[in-house]
Amino acid sequence: MSKKILILPGDGIGPEIVAQARKVLDVLIADGLDVTISEAPLGGAAYDQYGAPYPEFTQNLARAADAILLGAVGGPQYDTLDRPLRPERGLLAIRKDLNLFANLRPAILYPELANASTLKAEVVSGLDILIVRELTGDIYFGQPRGIRVNANGEREGFNTMLYAESEIRRIAHVAFQAAQKRGKKLCSVDKANVLETTEFWKEIFTEVAKEYPDVELSHMYVDNAAMQLVRRPKQFDVMVTGNIFGDILSDQASMLTGSIGMLPSASLDQNNKGLYEPSHGSAPDIAGKDLANPLATILSLAMMLRYSFNDETAALRVENAVKAVLAKGLRTADIYEEGTEKVSCSAMGDAVVAAL
Amino acid sequence: MSKKILILPGDGIGPEIVAQARKVLDVLIADGLDVTISEAPLGGAAYDQYGAPYPEFTQNLARAADAILLGAVGGPQYDTLDRPLRPERGLLAIRKDLNLFANLRPAILYPELANASTLKAEVVSGLDILIVRELTGDIYFGQPRGIRVNANGEREGFNTMLYAESEIRRIAHVAFQAAQKRGKKLCSVDKANVLETTEFWKEIFTEVAKEYPDVELSHMYVDNAAMQLVRRPKQFDVMVTGNIFGDILSDQASMLTGSIGMLPSASLDQNNKGLYEPSHGSAPDIAGKDLANPLATILSLAMMLRYSFNDETAALRVENAVKAVLAKGLRTADIYEEGTEKVSCSAMGDAVVAAL
Ligand SMILES: CC(C)[C@H](C(=O)O)[C@@H](O)C(=O)O
Ligand SMILES: CC(C)[C@H](C(=O)O)[C@@H](O)C(=O)O
Repeated sequence: MSKKILILPGDGIGPEIVAQARKVLDVLIADGLDVTISEAPLGGAAYDQYGAPYPEFTQNLARAADAILLGAVGGPQYDTLDRPLRPERGLLAIRKDLNLFANLRPAILYPELANASTLKAEVVSGLDILIVRELTGDIYFGQPRGIRVNANGEREGFNTMLYAESEIRRIAHVAFQAAQKRGKKLCSVDKANVLETTEFWKEIFTEVAKEYPDVELSHMYVDNAAMQLVRRPKQFDVMVTGNIFGDILSDQASMLTGSIGMLPSASLDQNNKGLYEPSHGSAPDIAGKDLANPLATILSLAMMLRYSFNDETAALRVENAVKAVLAKGLRTADIYEEGTEKVSCSAMGDAVVAAL
Repeated sequence: MSKKILILPGDGIGPEIVAQARKVLDVLIADGLDVTISEAPLGGAAYDQYGAPYPEFTQNLARAADAILLGAVGGPQYDTLDRPLRPERGLLAIRKDLNLFANLRPAILYPELANASTLKAEVVSGLDILIVRELTGDIYFGQPRGIRVNANGEREGFNTMLYAESEIRRIAHVAFQAAQKRGKKLCSVDKANVLETTEFWKEIFTEVAKEYPDVELSHMYVDNAAMQLVRRPKQFDVMVTGNIFGDILSDQASMLTGSIGMLPSASLDQNNKGLYEPSHGSAPDIAGKDLANPLATILSLAMMLRYSFNDETAALRVENAVKAVLAKGLRTADIYEEGTEKVSCSAMGDAVVAAL
């Protein structure tokens, strides 16, 4: 039976970048990849059409899909909406609804783009970190939460950081197995000296480590991790952490490469059903101008082939096509530098198709 | 009446670096600064002597003091102690006990040390950020917290992020006033798109802003802030945020300068009583070897003169002496580079004294 891919163009540059990945997908289909494709809105686009950022229409297709490709969500026109209607609520809702607890975010420096980094070449050349972020727990979803009047008659805002043992165990297994397939070094990031939640996290990771004697587990406080990512980022192979620390550190790590327009991500459930999306945002300022970099989205498609369809050959084919266009000197505006050729979003998509 | 300074040497390199600041202080006293000095242990040293990281002996002196100079706390020999006995508990306890809610952490790049940064010169040259971190609230102190068995019979770790209106208001005033004395730009960092605590934080900051029409307030999500600190750190003047985000971002910002051995910090209460300490840790690996950099501690003393004693002249005298020794080419090991003169911790202290 053919696998089902759901495409969620989303907002801002979402539709343009997803359209380029779609071209790549069409070539793979012509060459025998057995998938059916449907499309639905998420985020602001879904609010515009259905009045909710993750409407039933999208939910039904998302639940039925084997893998999902997302552009990006969000835009200034939605900033004044009530909180539950905002685009990012759609993103949080689909992650939770589909149990996509394992967020994999590579931070890789492409040799051709070494100059794009704000860090010195020797500090980042060859950088290749995988950040594993837990995505459906922590303070993002913990109850109770809200704004209330306290016993002194004063207003206060509050949220709950929370991790159950099973939530920690399952992300630990994902992280250890990812490390086994790479450099066999796993750094678990916590704030165990202050937060009981992460003291517990550390305890469970130490236990799970016994099942992976070939992986070297280390622990680091989150403040130190933020420092070490600046000081000596190449010390890391795989980093794993909770939802909120992962939000911060994975963005920091992406930016070390200087070309966040190149970085894909995967959010997986227990059975490798996944949502794939570029690490960057919806860039409303350049939306509709055919200026965006579609490569992170195309590389997200490669991750889909690898993780959800277990098709390493097709994944490598796409990744090699991306490397080929970089080697040819083609660059979208965000990664352009003198001596290279500036191309549009759609031209970049065409170039990848040609290189396939 | 003379002001009372309490010195807390702490652990690791703490005693050596504090001894250098003490030499500087002695010169100021000889020149007429009217202070009395006492000393007490904190952290591991306090555990060794009194069985607790913030014992009553220290507490009594700390409460009576007008200002406190701390070296650093922590060391591997204390890692196996029960949580409430560990050195960092002493630090958290003294902050809370004395209501030191306003943590000021400058991240300044000294022109003489520009090469020390892992970031490209053009990205960090002239960097001068002040991070204002709330220090006695948030998930650091929020109740309830712990590790419990939940309704499903499963263990879970949990903590509470919490900010009352008055806590947000008072740190907002500190931050706006700090911005008024500098570049008049204040960036408040939150995760208001996900966390109600910080949505409330943002609301209160927006309200307080009306009292400071000369300061330009902006808001940034914490993940974006971690990116922007890498991408274009000089866009910031004063950044203000809660305790846990401040822990992460202030360490990241310090490391941008490449010379965390140079960065002081102040933790103030409502009346400018303060605890002053270097931003770096206790560096147990080099403790007792006369290798540490005492300049962050000496610069912390300068902050004490400025904030707690309102003595700008003396503060500048100390800061200029530090600049003079750097200009002379003296460097401790952590900031040494070819063409400069490597000196010990105590020799650096002597050089500052000579330059006063
Ligand atoms: C948009 C926002 C809710 C989201 C998050 O915080 O998870 C984003 O920052 C991300 O990292 O995917
Ligand atoms: C030691 C630790 C408890 C402390 C903190 O998290 O506040 C430290 O990291 C700091 O920033 O002063």
